[in-house]
Amino acid sequence: MKAYSQMSKEELLALKSDLEKAYDDFKARGLKLDMSRGKPSSEQMDLSMGMMDVFHSRADLTAADGLDCRNYGNLDGLPEAKELMASMMECRAEDIIVYGNSSLNVMYDTVARSMTHGVMGNTPWCKLDKVKFLCPVPGYDRHFAITEYFGIEMINVPMTPEGPDMDIVEKLVSEDEAIKGIWCVPKYSNPQGISYSDETIRRFARLKPAAKDFRLYWDNAYCIHHLYPDKQDTILEILDECRKAGNPDLAYKFVSTSKVSFPGSGVAALGASQANLEDIKKQLSIQTIGHDKLNQLRHVRFFKNIDGMREHMMKHAAIIRPKFELVLDKLDKELGGLGIGEWLRPIGGYFISFDSLEGCAKAIVAKAKEAGVIMTGAGATFPYGKDPKDSNIRIAPTYPSMDELGLAADLFILCVKLVSIDKLLENM
Amino acid sequence: MKAYSQMSKEELLALKSDLEKAYDDFKARGLKLDMSRGKPSSEQMDLSMGMMDVFHSRADLTAADGLDCRNYGNLDGLPEAKELMASMMECRAEDIIVYGNSSLNVMYDTVARSMTHGVMGNTPWCKLDKVKFLCPVPGYDRHFAITEYFGIEMINVPMTPEGPDMDIVEKLVSEDEAIKGIWCVPKYSNPQGISYSDETIRRFARLKPAAKDFRLYWDNAYCIHHLYPDKQDTILEILDECRKAGNPDLAYKFVSTSKVSFPGSGVAALGASQANLEDIKKQLSIQTIGHDKLNQLRHVRFFKNIDGMREHMMKHAAIIRPKFELVLDKLDKELGGLGIGEWLRPIGGYFISFDSLEGCAKAIVAKAKEAGVIMTGAGATFPYGKDPKDSNIRIAPTYPSMDELGLAADLFILCVKLVSIDKLLENM
Repeated sequence: MKAYSQMSKEELLALKSDLEKAYDDFKARGLKLDMSRGKPSSEQMDLSMGMMDVFHSRADLTAADGLDCRNYGNLDGLPEAKELMASMMECRAEDIIVYGNSSLNVMYDTVARSMTHGVMGNTPWCKLDKVKFLCPVPGYDRHFAITEYFGIEMINVPMTPEGPDMDIVEKLVSEDEAIKGIWCVPKYSNPQGISYSDETIRRFARLKPAAKDFRLYWDNAYCIHHLYPDKQDTILEILDECRKAGNPDLAYKFVSTSKVSFPGSGVAALGASQANLEDIKKQLSIQTIGHDKLNQLRHVRFFKNIDGMREHMMKHAAIIRPKFELVLDKLDKELGGLGIGEWLRPIGGYFISFDSLEGCAKAIVAKAKEAGVIMTGAGATFPYGKDPKDSNIRIAPTYPSMDELGLAADLFILCVKLVSIDKLLENM
Repeated sequence: MKAYSQMSKEELLALKSDLEKAYDDFKARGLKLDMSRGKPSSEQMDLSMGMMDVFHSRADLTAADGLDCRNYGNLDGLPEAKELMASMMECRAEDIIVYGNSSLNVMYDTVARSMTHGVMGNTPWCKLDKVKFLCPVPGYDRHFAITEYFGIEMINVPMTPEGPDMDIVEKLVSEDEAIKGIWCVPKYSNPQGISYSDETIRRFARLKPAAKDFRLYWDNAYCIHHLYPDKQDTILEILDECRKAGNPDLAYKFVSTSKVSFPGSGVAALGASQANLEDIKKQLSIQTIGHDKLNQLRHVRFFKNIDGMREHMMKHAAIIRPKFELVLDKLDKELGGLGIGEWLRPIGGYFISFDSLEGCAKAIVAKAKEAGVIMTGAGATFPYGKDPKDSNIRIAPTYPSMDELGLAADLFILCVKLVSIDKLLENM
């Protein structure tokens, strides 16, 4: 393939004319496809329907510790739910709290509590002039929405193939006491699918923050969300690394079963040091009498243990792997060598991250929308929705059917080509 | 019966000696009974076990609006869940948000949001020097715990048989801009079982608060929690009364099915004006992707509608009514006319409120504990756990079996008598 940058104006114009015809054909089909969110497909939901059979009206709903799960009682998770979630999190059952249905809500509450009550005895953030968070970019829009909502200043930190640029992280965190946290998706990151290297994680664990209440907001959203049975990333366990580095209180670790069982009806959990957990439970005991124990028990009885969960995740993988490969193969085939876009080939997670030529992302997403395909808004992967290069686009391939996805990918590729040609022509 | 205050020192001492023998007999039995919380009994839990059968692995889990409840989507409640919860709340489906498993959590979040973001554009409370709440007393300890946790100053307002003393409420609220809310349990109040009169509710709706962000925190926890099929309180609907009074934004209304279906695995909801709901949804959309829709659907399919819910509540009543009557009859029989305690005869809710002679409540609760019966801590029904008269004790009769409850009530009565005698002797 000839790189677009090597083409003459005439070649580009001729190509554009062909591509525009193809685009008009797409428009005429009146597509309505949504690739905007990392949403499992209906077929994936079916995998967990057995969970609806584990309880019945004569079932014994008593927990391992003898508690009647139908009644009040238990603030931080059933013993067996702690075991299951902790093994998913690769940490100890005593280091976690099991929550309700949403890890996002746990993260929100963690920031909200820090605002009003501070972290482990430190000044509540609402009493400070300035609070800042580091945001590896591209990243997860809902993380950035939380910190923006609380008026926290967000500072971009570029991602590398090894994780966030640790030279920058170390420098900023050690110098600026106003920096109180960093949003991390350490495994199969959203959107790039990058897993942090051992060196990156060790450098995180060894950070010497100026702020005593600085914490790693370690959203291990895709901890068991592999695409392949035989190609799987493993990463170092952050709580353990922090302990070893003499920084036991540095990390809050978040997970949920949203993309394991049912989004919105799963179970979330937080892992942290005992000192952090004690601090958090002070609030938790005021906020609620307890979370949904029946749903915790339902999950335990369905998955049984981490082996059951891993087996289940391979069923998810079998459904979504072909979708990732379909899109990635099309990108390779249609855009490879053209010099108008870059992407990684993830082996887990929920997204494909695409980087267009600078200044093209918004136009590509708009053009796809015009022909009926909704992508995640360009800029969404950056704080304040502002991608400085207007380049990153998050592709979410899991929800559409293979047929729809093929069409959507074809259209996306067409839009990338058309917008890139316009951009190149503009600069000629 | 002769009032204790009419007895001579000798009579009291003789009585005391008899009562002490009976008390020692109780102690020797090694009772272990918990009457501390308003907890349904295991038999009551059984009533809802049919809910475990409404879903199965081939069930259609699509909501009325076509949404697959197993997946992401829907922030403020399924249409059919809104219908059900709104009819329980006696308000319009469009005036509510359906939440997760805990109305306490919704109340906590409401206060937390007001601290960090303010109410409908007003100054966030964390930026104010002073924030105050009115607390009708006796009241619910978990309400007071929320406001205490946020450093909000709590001001006691006495309850009358008609509800909070509205002369005091009107005066304070109209004079002091720092007063931002009042905790209300308007029907079968916790702990007295008092339902607010029409006049009280109209006076609430017509309040002219100095603070624009003053709200009624209207916890309608026992809205359908009657004890009798034929004797039931009805109260005016607060959102409607506020609208009629030209104060549409004055109230937040909270309910849950915790004591209808399963505590901890029920569904909570908040009712308010459209302007309030919009304000709240700004936060909600940051805080979560959505609540547990499968549990909402499970509740709708089980109860079907408000008639199903009311019928279900009469099954609860059939179980707990004899328990209330057992305790109340014993109080009447054993303490009536003695002048050492007062109590009301509730027809709904979860509690019996007992007022001992001044300065006796702590000692009574301690004495009961010594003999193996845990009551709610004396003082718990007041802000900061401080009952100025040390007089109010909350009795929670629902959880123990009839046999246990009979024993516990006998012991409680013994403790009341013994402590009262000591108090009277002290003053002789």
